[in-house]
Amino acid sequence: MKRLAILGSTGSIGQSTLSIVEQFPERYQVAALAAGRNVDEAFAQAVRWKPRILSLATPALAGELANRLHQAGITGIEVTHGTEGTIACSTLPEADFVVSAIVGVAGLEATHAAILAGKPVGLANKECMVAAGEILTAAARTRNVPILPIDSEHNAVHQCLRVGAHNEVKCIWLTASGGPFRQLPLDQFASITPEQALKHPTWVMGRRITIDSATMLNKGLEVIEACRLFDVTPAQVRVTIHPQSTVHSMVEYVDGSILAQISITDMRLPILYALAWPERPKSSLTFDLAGLRHLEFEEPDFQRFPCLRLAFEAAEKGGAHSIALNAADEVAVGAFLERRISFMGIPGTIEKVLAATPEVHPATIAEVLACDREARERARALLA
Amino acid sequence: MKRLAILGSTGSIGQSTLSIVEQFPERYQVAALAAGRNVDEAFAQAVRWKPRILSLATPALAGELANRLHQAGITGIEVTHGTEGTIACSTLPEADFVVSAIVGVAGLEATHAAILAGKPVGLANKECMVAAGEILTAAARTRNVPILPIDSEHNAVHQCLRVGAHNEVKCIWLTASGGPFRQLPLDQFASITPEQALKHPTWVMGRRITIDSATMLNKGLEVIEACRLFDVTPAQVRVTIHPQSTVHSMVEYVDGSILAQISITDMRLPILYALAWPERPKSSLTFDLAGLRHLEFEEPDFQRFPCLRLAFEAAEKGGAHSIALNAADEVAVGAFLERRISFMGIPGTIEKVLAATPEVHPATIAEVLACDREARERARALLA
Repeated sequence: MKRLAILGSTGSIGQSTLSIVEQFPERYQVAALAAGRNVDEAFAQAVRWKPRILSLATPALAGELANRLHQAGITGIEVTHGTEGTIACSTLPEADFVVSAIVGVAGLEATHAAILAGKPVGLANKECMVAAGEILTAAARTRNVPILPIDSEHNAVHQCLRVGAHNEVKCIWLTASGGPFRQLPLDQFASITPEQALKHPTWVMGRRITIDSATMLNKGLEVIEACRLFDVTPAQVRVTIHPQSTVHSMVEYVDGSILAQISITDMRLPILYALAWPERPKSSLTFDLAGLRHLEFEEPDFQRFPCLRLAFEAAEKGGAHSIALNAADEVAVGAFLERRISFMGIPGTIEKVLAATPEVHPATIAEVLACDREARERARALLA
Repeated sequence: MKRLAILGSTGSIGQSTLSIVEQFPERYQVAALAAGRNVDEAFAQAVRWKPRILSLATPALAGELANRLHQAGITGIEVTHGTEGTIACSTLPEADFVVSAIVGVAGLEATHAAILAGKPVGLANKECMVAAGEILTAAARTRNVPILPIDSEHNAVHQCLRVGAHNEVKCIWLTASGGPFRQLPLDQFASITPEQALKHPTWVMGRRITIDSATMLNKGLEVIEACRLFDVTPAQVRVTIHPQSTVHSMVEYVDGSILAQISITDMRLPILYALAWPERPKSSLTFDLAGLRHLEFEEPDFQRFPCLRLAFEAAEKGGAHSIALNAADEVAVGAFLERRISFMGIPGTIEKVLAATPEVHPATIAEVLACDREARERARALLA
C-alpha cells in the first residue's frame, strides 16, 4: 500500500491521480492533498479521501475550508496553507510517494523538500525540471530517490530506457503533435489569433500549455526536461513531429535499435506507471493496436517554430537560461492571450530576454526563484 | 572475449555472424564452424578464421576439405562431418556461445546438445523452436542457459520484454510484411506462379522462406516460436501486417503500454544483439529516424492467408501438430516450386496432413525427428 501526497490535487493531473487511487484502492491511499484556490473541489476531495493534511493557497481559503469541514462534522484533517503548507504535505512522514503536479515554479520548493525527505516523486510539473533540474536530480542522486516522469513523452522515454544501459543511449526522440500550425503557410503566422492557437489537435489542456504546443515551446521545455531527467546532452535529444500522438517517444541505442512506446493519449497511464513502478498493474487503458492504420513522422522546421531553436540554445547554456526561457514564455503567452503581442512576438520576446540573461547557474532553490523573478521582470519591461 | 561456435557458417546468417566477428575482433573469436556442402566457402572460412574444429555434411566433403587444408599447409583444424560433427562443434568445451543457424530440423540435435552443455544459444533456426520448443526451453531452464532469438521479430520481442515482468505481458504483436500478395484479389490466388511468389517486397531470403512469407506460413511458424521462446499462449500472440518492416515487433503490457522496436532491416543487428546481450555495442547499423515518414498497419485476413489460421491451430495443439505444420509445409512448398500443386495447394496439403496427425507430445529429440519424418511421408503420400 502506497500512501500518496498529491501536490496540485484539484488540477487535471491531481484529479486523474485520484481516479487511479479510486480504481486501485488495494494499492493506493491518500495521505496529503495540496490544492490551490478551488475550495469547493478541495472540500469534496477532503470528504471523499480523508487526507491527514490538506493545504490551500492562502490563510483565508484554508480558514473557509476548515470552517466547512467543521460544519460537516469532519475531523482529523489538518488544514494548512501556502508554500509552507505544500511543503508540509510533500514531507508528511507517513507519505510514501509524492505526485508533483502544481503548475509552474510554485511547486518547486515542495518538490525539492520531498526529495530531500527521501520520497519518490512522480513529476508532472515540467517547469520544476526546466528551472531546477540540476539541483533536483543532484538531490535525488544523493538521497537515492527515483523521479518518475508523469508526462506522456518522458514517461515513454523512461520505459524505453529500461532496455539498455545509460552509456548505450545514442539519443532520445521526443514526439510532438506539431500543434495546430504545423502546415499553416509561414506568411500567415503573423496573424494567428489566440482563438486559433487555443485549438490543439490532440490533447485538451490548460491555456498556456496549449499555446506552448502551438509555438512548440512546450516541446522545447521537454527537451530541457529530458536532458535533466535522463542526464543526456541537448545534442542527444531530437524532436520528431508525429501528428497522431500515438508513439509517445523513443530511445535510440548505439547498436542501432530504437525502442518506441505506444499507448492511448490518456494521462492516467503515465500516472499509473509512475505510481506503480517498477510494477505494471492491469488497467483498462488499452490502445486498440488492431485498429492502428498509419503513423506519420516529419522533421520540425525551426523557421516555423523558433521557440524550439531557442529552447535547444537554452538547454545548451542551462542554469539561468533554462529558467528565463520558461519565465519569459509564460509572460509572453499572457501578453499574446491579451492580444498585446502577436503570435511570433512570443519567440521574439523570449529571444530578447535570453539575450539579456547572464550565464549563471543557481545553486539553491532560492537562487532559482530569484532568476525566475528577474526573467519575468525583464519580459514585462520589454512588453510594457 | 566470447568464442563462438557457428552452426551453418556458410549460410546467410553464418556469414553475417562472421562479418560481426570481423567488426568486433576485441569481442569475438571463432572456435568452431559447422557448414554443409559448400567446401569452397568452408575452406575460405577455415583459412580466414582458423577454428579449432570444422564440420561438413559428409565424410567425402570433410576429406576433400582436410586435403585442401593440408595442401595449403594449414594445420590445427580438426575436420569432421555429419550430425556428430555438428554436435562436436556445438559442444566444444572452449566455445562460449553457439549460433544455431542451420536451416530446418538438421540443426536440432546440435542445438539441444549445446543447451545441455550449458552454452548460451543465439537461435536463428525457427524450425528448432517450432518442432522441439518444449524440449529446448525445458533444457534451457534446467541449465539456466539463455536462448537469444536471431530473427528480427523475436529479437524485437526480446528487447521489448525487458521493460516489464512476464506476468505483466498482455500479448506479443509480431509484425509481418504481408508478402507480395497482401493486396492481390482473392480470385487470383489460384493462379499464383512460383515466379510471382518468389518476389518478396522487403527481405531477400532463401526460396522456401520467401514462399512461406507469401503464404504467411512463415509468420505462423513465428507465432509458434514466440509461444515457446517467451512462454505465452497462442491467444497472447497477435499478427499485424506492416508493409514497411520498420517496426520489427511489439509487446503490449497489461497496463496499456505497448513497446515497439524499430531498426533497419539487416540481420546483423539481431545477431549483434544476441552475441553481445545484455550489452549493446556501438554499431554502424543505424536507422534514419529523421527520414521516417509513415508507417502502415493492417489486420491479416485469414481467408487470404489460411496458413496463418492453420499455424494458430497447430500452436494451440502443440507437439506433433507444430512439427507437422512445418514438415508438411516444406514438402508442399517443394511441390509448388516444382509446379505440381497450386499456391493454395500449400495450405490445402498442410490442412490434410494436420488432420491426419495424432495429438502426441514428443518427449525426446529422437521422437521429434520421428514425428517430422512421419509428417513428411504423409505429405508426400498425399501429393503422390
